[in-house]
Amino acid sequence: MADKSKKPQKLKARLPRGLEDRGPAAISATLQMVEKIREVYERYGFEPVETPAMEFTDALGKFLPDQDRPNEGVFSFQDDDEQWISLRYDLTAPLARYVAENFDSLPKPYRSYRFGWVFRNEKPGPGRFRQFMQFDADTVGAPTPAADAEMCMMAADTMEALGIPRGSYVVKVNNRKVLDGALEAIGLGGEENAGRRLTVLRAIDKLDKFSADEVRKLLGPGRWDGGEEGKGDFTSGAGLSAADADIVLAVTQKRDDWKEAIAAADAYLARSDVGQAGVSELEEIAKLVTASGYASDRIRIDPSVVRGLEYYTGAVYEVELLLETNDEKGRPVRFGSVGGGGRYDGLVSRFRGEPVPATGFSIGVSRLQAALTLIGKVDTKPAVGPVVVTVFGGEIADYQKMVATLRNAGIRAELYLGNPKHSLGQQMKYADRRNAPCAIIQGSDERANGKVQLKDLILGAGLTEIKDREEYLKKQSEAQYEVDASKLVDAVREVLARHDVKWN
Amino acid sequence: MADKSKKPQKLKARLPRGLEDRGPAAISATLQMVEKIREVYERYGFEPVETPAMEFTDALGKFLPDQDRPNEGVFSFQDDDEQWISLRYDLTAPLARYVAENFDSLPKPYRSYRFGWVFRNEKPGPGRFRQFMQFDADTVGAPTPAADAEMCMMAADTMEALGIPRGSYVVKVNNRKVLDGALEAIGLGGEENAGRRLTVLRAIDKLDKFSADEVRKLLGPGRWDGGEEGKGDFTSGAGLSAADADIVLAVTQKRDDWKEAIAAADAYLARSDVGQAGVSELEEIAKLVTASGYASDRIRIDPSVVRGLEYYTGAVYEVELLLETNDEKGRPVRFGSVGGGGRYDGLVSRFRGEPVPATGFSIGVSRLQAALTLIGKVDTKPAVGPVVVTVFGGEIADYQKMVATLRNAGIRAELYLGNPKHSLGQQMKYADRRNAPCAIIQGSDERANGKVQLKDLILGAGLTEIKDREEYLKKQSEAQYEVDASKLVDAVREVLARHDVKWN
Repeated sequence: MADKSKKPQKLKARLPRGLEDRGPAAISATLQMVEKIREVYERYGFEPVETPAMEFTDALGKFLPDQDRPNEGVFSFQDDDEQWISLRYDLTAPLARYVAENFDSLPKPYRSYRFGWVFRNEKPGPGRFRQFMQFDADTVGAPTPAADAEMCMMAADTMEALGIPRGSYVVKVNNRKVLDGALEAIGLGGEENAGRRLTVLRAIDKLDKFSADEVRKLLGPGRWDGGEEGKGDFTSGAGLSAADADIVLAVTQKRDDWKEAIAAADAYLARSDVGQAGVSELEEIAKLVTASGYASDRIRIDPSVVRGLEYYTGAVYEVELLLETNDEKGRPVRFGSVGGGGRYDGLVSRFRGEPVPATGFSIGVSRLQAALTLIGKVDTKPAVGPVVVTVFGGEIADYQKMVATLRNAGIRAELYLGNPKHSLGQQMKYADRRNAPCAIIQGSDERANGKVQLKDLILGAGLTEIKDREEYLKKQSEAQYEVDASKLVDAVREVLARHDVKWN
Repeated sequence: MADKSKKPQKLKARLPRGLEDRGPAAISATLQMVEKIREVYERYGFEPVETPAMEFTDALGKFLPDQDRPNEGVFSFQDDDEQWISLRYDLTAPLARYVAENFDSLPKPYRSYRFGWVFRNEKPGPGRFRQFMQFDADTVGAPTPAADAEMCMMAADTMEALGIPRGSYVVKVNNRKVLDGALEAIGLGGEENAGRRLTVLRAIDKLDKFSADEVRKLLGPGRWDGGEEGKGDFTSGAGLSAADADIVLAVTQKRDDWKEAIAAADAYLARSDVGQAGVSELEEIAKLVTASGYASDRIRIDPSVVRGLEYYTGAVYEVELLLETNDEKGRPVRFGSVGGGGRYDGLVSRFRGEPVPATGFSIGVSRLQAALTLIGKVDTKPAVGPVVVTVFGGEIADYQKMVATLRNAGIRAELYLGNPKHSLGQQMKYADRRNAPCAIIQGSDERANGKVQLKDLILGAGLTEIKDREEYLKKQSEAQYEVDASKLVDAVREVLARHDVKWN
């Protein structure tokens, strides 16, 4: 109406890409998950420790999987004193800083856990957010494969505590040194081969999705994703000779029996020291999880596991859900990885200048939550709402006092706080929307006689299905009735008991 | 040793200023607090909703209290598409965006709560962090003072649920329109007086700390904080005449009886429409909280309450702890504000172009936690640690299996994961450090006979105080004994029961 130039422009209410809001159902599901994970981790002797959302950029290092944009992937800003600060992109790098900073006062080995939001300044996509939650556990100061074995067993126990049946998940274990040994065996050691090593590792990582023949193309000349030359997109290969590709595939091939996998790696990597170290660590883990009864059905040796982050130095492990879901084209696909980790012996040492062995495991909470929802392990039915006290002609103060009385008795209750002139119909519609178990009404007649009307909305909802008139009237009188205002709390409790309403 | 230039420089392990790590005790205290607050809010019919840590900068607006640096105070970065994104500095502005974005699908009035980290790019100081936790509740779409009264009652109930006794806190209520009316009454309306208005409001805000005479100086010519001219620092005043300062002080003076406070404001603001509206809203709140029994001892009308954020448009409220603590010089001071809020009818409207009334309340979780720790309402005794299984010559796999057995029986247990060659003494020191209730030892003799040694560390800790030799030997044998390896779980349960160990 006014033509003053100061009239504020209407802002658009929206979130930046790759971020999401969360409603009651998602929040409640996360809470339940987090509690179950915490319970397992504490049973394993891990204790909580938390770091803030930001760190000095140099303390985080450059370990993000996005190798094509080495300086990107994180949200950063410059502080007053010109120093760069970044939002954490995982919970491991900040833990390494924490342990290094508090080294002398911590028990060693130091087992700890934490969950929280992490941030990646990457291109978002379906199910791929720029802020997501991780739940991590780490053991610092434990040099032996027993610490890695413990992580894998804890991962398995966590999956079962969350309701994922045995056989519907698997913890796959490998060792970076085995992969390094294979790369060494085909002459790809040394600084100058870093790029090609990465291409080989990416090809190996595809063994989960593609057949060995397809991966062979990626190891060799490259691969057309349309299935034949010139069809679809082309992915450049690592340019390995057929013999070298054979070695890589022989070492990384999945095998049902872990002893065969170890034997194959051992044979092909006989002349690589790092390869031999990897084989021996992998064998030790296999023996440990076998002794504790976790082998085969829960934890498997799988030499094709790569894991993205650059900081891993030994054992790597990955939790895969074997549940099927549908991809964007409706085809069934395995749900895939919901977490993983590995040994990162160099991450704390960066600060300490002395070797500090460490191994850790990270759960992608949001992704796992999607999986649990899929298999019905997350309660998705809407919660029963509060009792709604309607406002009907009298003093607001009197109605608000009624609500206070209910709340003080531990009953979830609300006063209708919309425009007090709204009709009773509008207010009842609100009560329905809130999924209220009952509504309280006090008009002038009731007020004069010290009474209130109590409307059982759950019984009331069933009325429409009744055809018989007598029956209808009977049920109707059961669904709405007058009680003494002084007995409001008891009357409401009766309704709640009738429908077994329990708020958690 | 090597003189290669590539030798990595040792990084310094430290956090940027104003950020902190949190250990088990602090995390557990926050969890307990958050659960208690949540319980109260849900009793009031509020449901959870969460927004991400970042928003478009323009969606957050510029409402930070730091008026001297209007464009600062937030952490911001530019996205790929050149748009500015900021970390949220409170939970209210993001909620306004959320409600505006989802307006049609939300019940109205919409009561919701959320807690989470907020970020301020301000100068940190003692107890003043750049990342801290808030717990907010907001009601959107409720135009009447009943919604504000509900917030105040909920704040009071929350304090008591957290263990703060009645009388040790107070919820103080005021109305911005009363303050606006007073400013109008002394001729400080209009855009051109914005700066002086702010100086007056800041002076009023000091009524909590200073006497009326000292505040009068701030309203008038200015104040020397050394007590007399030329002594200490000088704070410029608002330059009000003595008569105008009288009006401001008369309106904002604390009074024991809320009716007197209302009457004074009413009298002085008789000719100000906005002042009259404020007085009438304040009176309505006073009546509502009186009717529900919350007046005087829990909720008080206090016309000196200002609250910092610029977006408040009506009722403002503040929770003050009356507990005493010591300042940096050891002098007793009141703990002060731990939360507050108010009505912000303009914040959602910025997106909607239509009026959307809203009122909300925010608890400073970290600050309140400090207060609760001070009065002993936070459990600070160290938790009992896990059972520690030591490694003593045998196969790690066998010890790890023992641990797995204990864990599968629901007992918190750890394998010693340090160097397996560490002496038993070193391992027992670790067990002490972990506050373990007992330790398990299996040497070659026990192994050969299918036995384990069980060491009750709580009993053992008491041995040093025993002087009598017989008694000592008797107690020593009670504190360490051999059991069948197959009965390990039962034996450990016996120790836990002996000391009433319950992990939560």
